[in-house]
Amino acid sequence: MANTLLGPLSGTDRVDGLLDDGAWIAALLEVELALSAVAVEQGAVTEHDADAVERAVAAVAGVDPHALAAESVEGGNPVIPLVKRLKAAAARIQPGAERAVHPGATSQDVMDTALMLLTRRAGHRVVADLTACADAAAALAATHRDTPCAARTLGQQALPTTFGLVAATWCTGLDRARAGLDRVLTALPVSYGGAAGTLAAVHPHGPAVADALAARLGLAPQGVPWHTERSRIGELAGALGVAAGACAKPAGDVVLLSATELGEVSESAPGDSSSMPHKRNPAAAVTARGAAKRAPGLVATLLAGAEQEFQRAAGAWHAEWETLVALLRVTAGAAARLRVSLDGLQVHPEAMARNLDLAAGAQGHGTGHAADLVDTVLAGRPA
Amino acid sequence: MANTLLGPLSGTDRVDGLLDDGAWIAALLEVELALSAVAVEQGAVTEHDADAVERAVAAVAGVDPHALAAESVEGGNPVIPLVKRLKAAAARIQPGAERAVHPGATSQDVMDTALMLLTRRAGHRVVADLTACADAAAALAATHRDTPCAARTLGQQALPTTFGLVAATWCTGLDRARAGLDRVLTALPVSYGGAAGTLAAVHPHGPAVADALAARLGLAPQGVPWHTERSRIGELAGALGVAAGACAKPAGDVVLLSATELGEVSESAPGDSSSMPHKRNPAAAVTARGAAKRAPGLVATLLAGAEQEFQRAAGAWHAEWETLVALLRVTAGAAARLRVSLDGLQVHPEAMARNLDLAAGAQGHGTGHAADLVDTVLAGRPA
Amino acid sequence: MANTLLGPLSGTDRVDGLLDDGAWIAALLEVELALSAVAVEQGAVTEHDADAVERAVAAVAGVDPHALAAESVEGGNPVIPLVKRLKAAAARIQPGAERAVHPGATSQDVMDTALMLLTRRAGHRVVADLTACADAAAALAATHRDTPCAARTLGQQALPTTFGLVAATWCTGLDRARAGLDRVLTALPVSYGGAAGTLAAVHPHGPAVADALAARLGLAPQGVPWHTERSRIGELAGALGVAAGACAKPAGDVVLLSATELGEVSESAPGDSSSMPHKRNPAAAVTARGAAKRAPGLVATLLAGAEQEFQRAAGAWHAEWETLVALLRVTAGAAARLRVSLDGLQVHPEAMARNLDLAAGAQGHGTGHAADLVDTVLAGRPA
Amino acid sequence: MANTLLGPLSGTDRVDGLLDDGAWIAALLEVELALSAVAVEQGAVTEHDADAVERAVAAVAGVDPHALAAESVEGGNPVIPLVKRLKAAAARIQPGAERAVHPGATSQDVMDTALMLLTRRAGHRVVADLTACADAAAALAATHRDTPCAARTLGQQALPTTFGLVAATWCTGLDRARAGLDRVLTALPVSYGGAAGTLAAVHPHGPAVADALAARLGLAPQGVPWHTERSRIGELAGALGVAAGACAKPAGDVVLLSATELGEVSESAPGDSSSMPHKRNPAAAVTARGAAKRAPGLVATLLAGAEQEFQRAAGAWHAEWETLVALLRVTAGAAARLRVSLDGLQVHPEAMARNLDLAAGAQGHGTGHAADLVDTVLAGRPA
Repeated sequence: MANTLLGPLSGTDRVDGLLDDGAWIAALLEVELALSAVAVEQGAVTEHDADAVERAVAAVAGVDPHALAAESVEGGNPVIPLVKRLKAAAARIQPGAERAVHPGATSQDVMDTALMLLTRRAGHRVVADLTACADAAAALAATHRDTPCAARTLGQQALPTTFGLVAATWCTGLDRARAGLDRVLTALPVSYGGAAGTLAAVHPHGPAVADALAARLGLAPQGVPWHTERSRIGELAGALGVAAGACAKPAGDVVLLSATELGEVSESAPGDSSSMPHKRNPAAAVTARGAAKRAPGLVATLLAGAEQEFQRAAGAWHAEWETLVALLRVTAGAAARLRVSLDGLQVHPEAMARNLDLAAGAQGHGTGHAADLVDTVLAGRPA
Repeated sequence: MANTLLGPLSGTDRVDGLLDDGAWIAALLEVELALSAVAVEQGAVTEHDADAVERAVAAVAGVDPHALAAESVEGGNPVIPLVKRLKAAAARIQPGAERAVHPGATSQDVMDTALMLLTRRAGHRVVADLTACADAAAALAATHRDTPCAARTLGQQALPTTFGLVAATWCTGLDRARAGLDRVLTALPVSYGGAAGTLAAVHPHGPAVADALAARLGLAPQGVPWHTERSRIGELAGALGVAAGACAKPAGDVVLLSATELGEVSESAPGDSSSMPHKRNPAAAVTARGAAKRAPGLVATLLAGAEQEFQRAAGAWHAEWETLVALLRVTAGAAARLRVSLDGLQVHPEAMARNLDLAAGAQGHGTGHAADLVDTVLAGRPA
Repeated sequence: MANTLLGPLSGTDRVDGLLDDGAWIAALLEVELALSAVAVEQGAVTEHDADAVERAVAAVAGVDPHALAAESVEGGNPVIPLVKRLKAAAARIQPGAERAVHPGATSQDVMDTALMLLTRRAGHRVVADLTACADAAAALAATHRDTPCAARTLGQQALPTTFGLVAATWCTGLDRARAGLDRVLTALPVSYGGAAGTLAAVHPHGPAVADALAARLGLAPQGVPWHTERSRIGELAGALGVAAGACAKPAGDVVLLSATELGEVSESAPGDSSSMPHKRNPAAAVTARGAAKRAPGLVATLLAGAEQEFQRAAGAWHAEWETLVALLRVTAGAAARLRVSLDGLQVHPEAMARNLDLAAGAQGHGTGHAADLVDTVLAGRPA
Repeated sequence: MANTLLGPLSGTDRVDGLLDDGAWIAALLEVELALSAVAVEQGAVTEHDADAVERAVAAVAGVDPHALAAESVEGGNPVIPLVKRLKAAAARIQPGAERAVHPGATSQDVMDTALMLLTRRAGHRVVADLTACADAAAALAATHRDTPCAARTLGQQALPTTFGLVAATWCTGLDRARAGLDRVLTALPVSYGGAAGTLAAVHPHGPAVADALAARLGLAPQGVPWHTERSRIGELAGALGVAAGACAKPAGDVVLLSATELGEVSESAPGDSSSMPHKRNPAAAVTARGAAKRAPGLVATLLAGAEQEFQRAAGAWHAEWETLVALLRVTAGAAARLRVSLDGLQVHPEAMARNLDLAAGAQGHGTGHAADLVDTVLAGRPA
């Protein structure tokens, strides 16, 4: 479905080009191409045939997604018709070369591996935005290390803190989420198990083919086939959920601190309102929060999908594809929009001081302790 | 994001044309057009100006979704730039006519009302498919009223039942889910509250405008503005979740009953496998189940979004748009794919009899009781 | 697990006495007792035997939950050992009377029916608290029909409204949620299907027994057995989720409006802090919100459980019991704590006026429109 | 709420003694005791006073949970009244010693730290059960390394595999989930931030006190206070969700493979049915699956709770306590019940052979490849 209108609002378009039809088809073909190449190395396929496959891949690359989608319905996934097209193209280029297409693989191998490629790419963009968010928070923390403001608990002013510590705490969550996501992205594996997950068709070369394929694609080795062992999908879901949450926290704080009555921060490019010119809507934080709120339900769907029966699940596997894409999009959106919010966030120390006078200021004994914690955070950041 | 490749597999494309960029823009303009027309009736706008708005709507209808999306980012929703374009177009057509655009409304009014229009249309298609599924189940129930098969509990054969009762039970769930969804679709309201949800700008005509707008658009009256009172969204989410579940149940049964060892049913067009010609994959049921599994997490997101602060929520509202669209899509997909599965489902009484001999058959005392329950279900169905 | 410490904080203890071990055992026995009595009416059991069952029920009523739990593990539900105990007790009282225990039933019948009884009772208490919340909101709306305050959108002051309309909007959500919950509670059915869901053992009296059992227990008739047709559980989950959301909205607003800088409302008995005497924590609203936040995930679990295979599900059914109990508890907690928050909520018109001066006040043109909407809400409330 | 009846069925009682009222109160007091002791080391409290606190802790240890719960409602958490009782007891023992109670701490510090202690203990039990499950799966894999059975995809027989590889795949998921859970348990930190999360009251000793407290309690150091930076809670939730999923997979397979028509495995102590003696319900796997199904919704709740505003959240924090306890319980239940299922699981090679003859057997070329993968899994297991 063409769904262009709403994405930019929530920043989910940040990774659209990495996850859309074109990216899927390219990734599926990238896997097939790598598989043929690796099979040559293992002696399972001739170089001559593999050359034809390479040309077939190029020929098929422009396939119309609608047509491929229509052909996919019967078998339940798009790899089946894509391989059929590849084989036909290879055979046209060179009779017999179709045997070098999809060697030893099953459609789930190609879908799963392609999904890992897409995830890694989109995930790295999320990591980059999380890093930028954390850097922006760190810069705010450094600048406002000593800027007094009210710490608020249960919505009430409590004691003084510094805005630097507020921002430093954002930074710790973002750094931690980034590290966690990076770890799972690094562990994203190739998938290669064959029709029954036994690597039967390429025995005894299966594990070597799988590892070579992983190396070629820059993915982690799989160990053994994982067609219905989805703990890595669960770990990925968890890490994305944590990342979304790490964005939701500062986004929510920016919204609250931007309130008319508080006025302690404002976005550098707040949304205005033609009918209400006094409004300074923190639109980036608002939409970051909106994107982040969509993550937990998607994580739950992926975790529930861990119950994949037998050697290929009849439904739980299929539920992963668009759910994982959606989760990547909303997490990317949260990070991208938060980045806009924090970059150049305007801080208003005078408003903080004025608010402090209402209550918390009278409770304080300086804020050196808060400033020291800022230093701890900044000193402890990854290089 | 263009996302055409995977939709048809899970049937979610069934409603894509009703929910995509074009449908959104058309619905937003439909609301604006109706609003101007209604304002004429209330004397708030001149007919002359409204005529210009009608032509402006036509002029804007072809707006590029990408451009509109880009303009939407700053303010946080697409109505703001759309109204800006409409006003400019109206003023070009007739100076001053811009005052007849968007009278008394706020962007949330137009977004919410448009979303209700989209939901009603997509929802009606889901209702139609649920009805077709229920009818198919009822036909199976009637045909196999007396066909003995094993009732299975906790995965084990228990006692004999009839396949008619199995299918009749599917039917009751589908009928019930359809009725529930129909009820909430009928209650989908117009939204009209103005900038602060007070109908200030058109006082004292606000309630009359709101009701006239509802009547013109075929939506339910709103009572009072509901910008942050989202119980109707929650009810809608719940009904869609129930509908997805009502599809998941028969889809799961079809998958299990199609197992090689059971062989009691088979789809009329099962997916085949070029490498494994003995396979008869129940691809429609598999993908129906896959689509249905995606619903509960989305329902949770919408329900969690009920906590909308003040008079317009900063994030929770924004999270609804794509989530509701996604929920409509997966529910539609579940219903559409189940319909394919049940239409022409092939039933194998001889396999049922053979399986019964393994265990449950020896326990039985006829199956007249089951057949009687089939009659009860069929007699109780809505006309 | 004894879990007394945290419940009162979030109000979940409000229904503990209706859902704990004692309530479960009493409800299970209530169902068995009613079933024997109904079977007498249908001539399936002698009155003499049924008298012995009645005495057996009394004898078993004091069973140690721990012992019963331990005996339940093997079979997977507590009805199996409870029926064993009942039969033994009945046989001791009168040899042969064990045939009048559990006539025609399966353990799921008794579990499901008991769960419906527990749900109805706890649900009615939730309904009562929702009603009280709505009444409190309505009273606030009436009192402050004309009290000006700032409407806030995206966290920013927009235009003036009245606090009466704020409270009236809370009222509409609570009234709507209450009505929805009431509707599903009224539809909670008896469950009676026998071992295979076919009513085989009491043929042809099964439907009559089921309906008589429903009438005796005050539950809705079932139509046909629903062992794996769980749409009514889904509807119940949805209604409870909506109810929790309807509480979360005003609870969140109370928290925000109680902020030090806004100070527009305060709870009548705010939590204090020994070390920070200036704090006035809106503890009831805080914990109402905390309870409400736990509902959506539980709703998702129940909806996902709709996929119940065959004639009794191997896991999805078992997942319902404690999940539904938990959902009833958190919804009850949200309503109970919100009731405390709204009853006697102190409203500070002078703070509202002071805040209005910051921005929104300058935008206004009176607030008569808002006050009129209050009247609409109050006039439209159910008697 | 006393909730003893249903826990053992789903194995959730496995950790009840580690998470119930008594465990909570003990953990809260353990934290207070450690905090006083650490404050002595830092010179913030005299040893004399701390001795009185130690005796006060002993005096308060027997506090009635109901009473403490009742006192907790006003302030919103049980630490407030517990500290009040501790101070009173300390002052009775030695006037002035109350200053050594709760030095520099806020109630959230003690709640969070206690929750981490409870989580670590319950989590370690889950780890132990996951290990036992993985060991049982590994033993099955070794024994049945070469036992042919049908690989099934989309519910259909595909090609031959060995049961050893089926079990080895279970093992890989369980091992991976165990390692992931272990990692997050090791990272569970102490919490010590004081009223505003600034460590103001013990400046400049705060970080040293925090680290010493962590060391004394065997928790990880916190870095900086994390009152509203909840990424570690999210990581924990994710790891528990993955663990539940890793149990759901083999539990589901056991249920399916135990089906009457397949009969390939059976539990060593299946549930029987008095009325249907032919049934051999895989009750342990059924209830493991039931428990696991409850995890994803709870994970979503915890992840959604990451949006904790300001310096202490008004609701999102409160929602964590019982949700995390529930998540620990259902994960523990899934692991404990799966352990029962897998320990002594009876495997029926003759049934596997018979089923293979139906379809997949004719497709095969031996199963040496599958057996080799078993070796890979077993060789790669952690010591």
